Amino acid sequence: MSRKVIITVAPTGSIPTRKDNPALPITAEEVALETRRSYEAGASVVHLHARNPVTGEPTSDIKVYRDYLAAVRSACPIITQITTGGGATTLGLSPEERVRPVLELLPDSASLNSGSMNFGRKLFSNTPDVMELYARRMKEINVMPEFEIYDLSMLQNVDYWIRQGGILDPPYQFSFVLGVMGGIPPSIKNLLALVESTPAGCTWQVIGIGRHQIPLGITGAMLGGNLRVGFEDNVFLSKGVLAKSNAELVEKAVRIIRELGMEAASVEEARDTLPLLNKR
Amino acid sequence: MSRKVIITVAPTGSIPTRKDNPALPITAEEVALETRRSYEAGASVVHLHARNPVTGEPTSDIKVYRDYLAAVRSACPIITQITTGGGATTLGLSPEERVRPVLELLPDSASLNSGSMNFGRKLFSNTPDVMELYARRMKEINVMPEFEIYDLSMLQNVDYWIRQGGILDPPYQFSFVLGVMGGIPPSIKNLLALVESTPAGCTWQVIGIGRHQIPLGITGAMLGGNLRVGFEDNVFLSKGVLAKSNAELVEKAVRIIRELGMEAASVEEARDTLPLLNKR
Amino acid sequence: MSRKVIITVAPTGSIPTRKDNPALPITAEEVALETRRSYEAGASVVHLHARNPVTGEPTSDIKVYRDYLAAVRSACPIITQITTGGGATTLGLSPEERVRPVLELLPDSASLNSGSMNFGRKLFSNTPDVMELYARRMKEINVMPEFEIYDLSMLQNVDYWIRQGGILDPPYQFSFVLGVMGGIPPSIKNLLALVESTPAGCTWQVIGIGRHQIPLGITGAMLGGNLRVGFEDNVFLSKGVLAKSNAELVEKAVRIIRELGMEAASVEEARDTLPLLNKR
Amino acid sequence: MSRKVIITVAPTGSIPTRKDNPALPITAEEVALETRRSYEAGASVVHLHARNPVTGEPTSDIKVYRDYLAAVRSACPIITQITTGGGATTLGLSPEERVRPVLELLPDSASLNSGSMNFGRKLFSNTPDVMELYARRMKEINVMPEFEIYDLSMLQNVDYWIRQGGILDPPYQFSFVLGVMGGIPPSIKNLLALVESTPAGCTWQVIGIGRHQIPLGITGAMLGGNLRVGFEDNVFLSKGVLAKSNAELVEKAVRIIRELGMEAASVEEARDTLPLLNKR
Repeated sequence: MSRKVIITVAPTGSIPTRKDNPALPITAEEVALETRRSYEAGASVVHLHARNPVTGEPTSDIKVYRDYLAAVRSACPIITQITTGGGATTLGLSPEERVRPVLELLPDSASLNSGSMNFGRKLFSNTPDVMELYARRMKEINVMPEFEIYDLSMLQNVDYWIRQGGILDPPYQFSFVLGVMGGIPPSIKNLLALVESTPAGCTWQVIGIGRHQIPLGITGAMLGGNLRVGFEDNVFLSKGVLAKSNAELVEKAVRIIRELGMEAASVEEARDTLPLLNKR
Repeated sequence: MSRKVIITVAPTGSIPTRKDNPALPITAEEVALETRRSYEAGASVVHLHARNPVTGEPTSDIKVYRDYLAAVRSACPIITQITTGGGATTLGLSPEERVRPVLELLPDSASLNSGSMNFGRKLFSNTPDVMELYARRMKEINVMPEFEIYDLSMLQNVDYWIRQGGILDPPYQFSFVLGVMGGIPPSIKNLLALVESTPAGCTWQVIGIGRHQIPLGITGAMLGGNLRVGFEDNVFLSKGVLAKSNAELVEKAVRIIRELGMEAASVEEARDTLPLLNKR
Repeated sequence: MSRKVIITVAPTGSIPTRKDNPALPITAEEVALETRRSYEAGASVVHLHARNPVTGEPTSDIKVYRDYLAAVRSACPIITQITTGGGATTLGLSPEERVRPVLELLPDSASLNSGSMNFGRKLFSNTPDVMELYARRMKEINVMPEFEIYDLSMLQNVDYWIRQGGILDPPYQFSFVLGVMGGIPPSIKNLLALVESTPAGCTWQVIGIGRHQIPLGITGAMLGGNLRVGFEDNVFLSKGVLAKSNAELVEKAVRIIRELGMEAASVEEARDTLPLLNKR
Repeated sequence: MSRKVIITVAPTGSIPTRKDNPALPITAEEVALETRRSYEAGASVVHLHARNPVTGEPTSDIKVYRDYLAAVRSACPIITQITTGGGATTLGLSPEERVRPVLELLPDSASLNSGSMNFGRKLFSNTPDVMELYARRMKEINVMPEFEIYDLSMLQNVDYWIRQGGILDPPYQFSFVLGVMGGIPPSIKNLLALVESTPAGCTWQVIGIGRHQIPLGITGAMLGGNLRVGFEDNVFLSKGVLAKSNAELVEKAVRIIRELGMEAASVEEARDTLPLLNKR
């Protein structure tokens, strides 16, 4: 049987604007439509950041998150994940503000950034206090943290503060983010170093930034992992060609995955594979 | 001819106390004596953090730095380096406060921490603003920055903000710090990853924390680099046995280096090798 | 401009039979037709082993090589390469017999196996005597050796016997063969180790055996190298599906390469890139 | 408790002569004396090649092996190992001749070379037939094979022909030989690649050739493995200084190991750790 690769779509993010790509979805309806198309193309997880539905600016308004999730859930049975990190550098949110939508809206999963770093020119602060707080809260409400890993040190942070700290046992779901200035540089060599430092039995995906999205994501799939695509990390379909939709990026990933003898995982297969805390 | 290994001694630091090791030097006289002994044992660079000469607490008092440097310079011709990082987590200093002793006292070199991270449970903030500020100032006064690297991302930070930013050209001097919780985990594999990501022509040393000081430092020497020893990073001579002095740690490093067919560099040899900005 | 990837097609080999894939070309006409189709699909180099045109058995008959090359050259302007290794394990040829077709027929290139090993259960002997002999002869007649590398040791063999031996200067063209039992195991990690051990300025391609042909070949392209496809190494288009022709494999490689933002090199571009000895 | 490092001494080998080092032991008495001194210095295993006691030439004379083993066993309780490889390139022995002393004399262990290669300019042939033959015979008589690994491919050879072939189950004892021309080049990077490719639960040692003996052996100890020293692989104590005895090399290894916080394993500890087949 072919290996099943879990594709996550991240259609909004907090950094790209409609100037970067006019197809960026902003309203709940747009987000739901993009998500459904991505789901139909092979995505089994959606990762969401909220946007002001009028201005398109990143927002922490819980009402927007509520509308997004309601619309997405009506549109398709995809696994839902929301950020706890995005507003930190763009909106200057406090740790409590960053996690509030998760606590109220109960997505299947939420990101948990696993250390402090420079994110471009900005400080992205995720001290052990914050990591522990988020992990405890998510565990209480059965929301799977996805540990966002921007460098080798962060894998150890998770092991030390979360596992040895007795907050949450493995297996964990990790995202390896390659290509943010301030994080590990994007290369197959560095991806391999991350994979080789990952505890056995955990699941992981590759988030390649910009032009690295597809090449590093596909390499991740060949190495036994999963990948994320979408406008949050990359708005181009190919060099100089804007993607017309997030679904186009999912389709592209699926085409290559199939050429390499693998298949996109269904939502059901992804639910079986990921260490979700709300499994039924 | 044998390869010459540059040994840096870091006798004080900001974390260990006399409870950790009663031989910790605190007064200018003690620091100078430890430095001279270390120099005689084979160290060619001293890295200094100031301590309140009465209480032993870390301090940013420029008078203390002045006294330390004066005493050290009287005691021996060792290459001098002071921190710009130590007070950030222990004293809550501002970036301006952290660099002031460098600007006034003109050591040969000063540390330049190359990214933000968790340092244990504390946030250690070193944004591009801070990195650029320090590099510019040091360049103006011919003080060599030693770029402190706590993970792979930080090597890229230096390349991007300092080199591509046009502030200071390579070759650079790097320190690879392995073993701080929040930084890259201490292993030969991770050290090799750092070394392989280092730009050609640069010099580098290994700072192994705690029991990793000697093994990783020696591995660094075998890989063509240099090493730092001293109480700042490790107070033990061997398991359960406190070092009686910083010089004892230098002596140990020198013994092993010689067994492996290398020699400790003299101050002159170190001056020739390091990319000092105040070379004569 | 997109990176150009040189695709070599190896349509015959010495191991697969028409039982393995009925589309295996055997006669000069079949070989030329397969080569032309592959060329049209994007291959710029052909690597040939001779087959008895009646029985399909591997042969060292120089007449067959002559017919193959004449037919191929009539069919398309592809770069030509013939083996000096194939008959060693299958036909028990002597070193002199293995190289004779090269000396007489003057292809653009010929393989030069760079060390001894087990090839499956058979001994594949390529001692320094043989390596030196082949390199000297090929240099005299301006035929580019392609150094076949089956493990890390073989890269050093080339450096030591050929370069330090003063026979032929770099840059060299290497093939990294991954997946033969007796050679380096097929993995991205091992491919990376080979790439990182390759002298600067040299060109290289990946020969992944069996189901590794496309995944490792594509990884090679992402790492800055080239790839070989064809029945010699793999007769399947995808799991359980036989390729209908060698060109189908070239087409598949080209599709994936394009998805990843690269293009197949033309023959002219390949001639410019490869360290051919008969460049005009 | 300190980690215990198993030190093997290889006092004779088949390549060095008394011209290379006049202290080379040749007679049974000399070999036993060197072995006892090495044992007293910290060696727990001896690896033997026979020499004509008059001329010093390598020999396959079983009488010499018998005398060596008897003398060594009288001299100290060290674990005994004899070669099955040495005569292949120097004496042109057949596979049957190479293994005969093992079958008759029942040492604790014997080397089993795990693939074919160039050994310098000579062909060193170890096809699957030979590997299987030796493994079967050694298993029958409870002699532990030590699988000699000269490159990454050979680790797979053992897995495929011996383990998957159903001849002998892991855990295995491996030797990683770095520095023979024709084998994997000697570097920490390459050693790490070997270690990372080793099946879990197996034991291994480093055989660094020439000036790599101590540095790579010590690196192996830091990586969790063991090391071999002795005239077979290296006759120098340090650059330009001949070792006065094999024991001097053992002493040097022990000194460094201790500086690094480890200890030499006793014979008893080595017996407990190694996957010997004649354990009592």
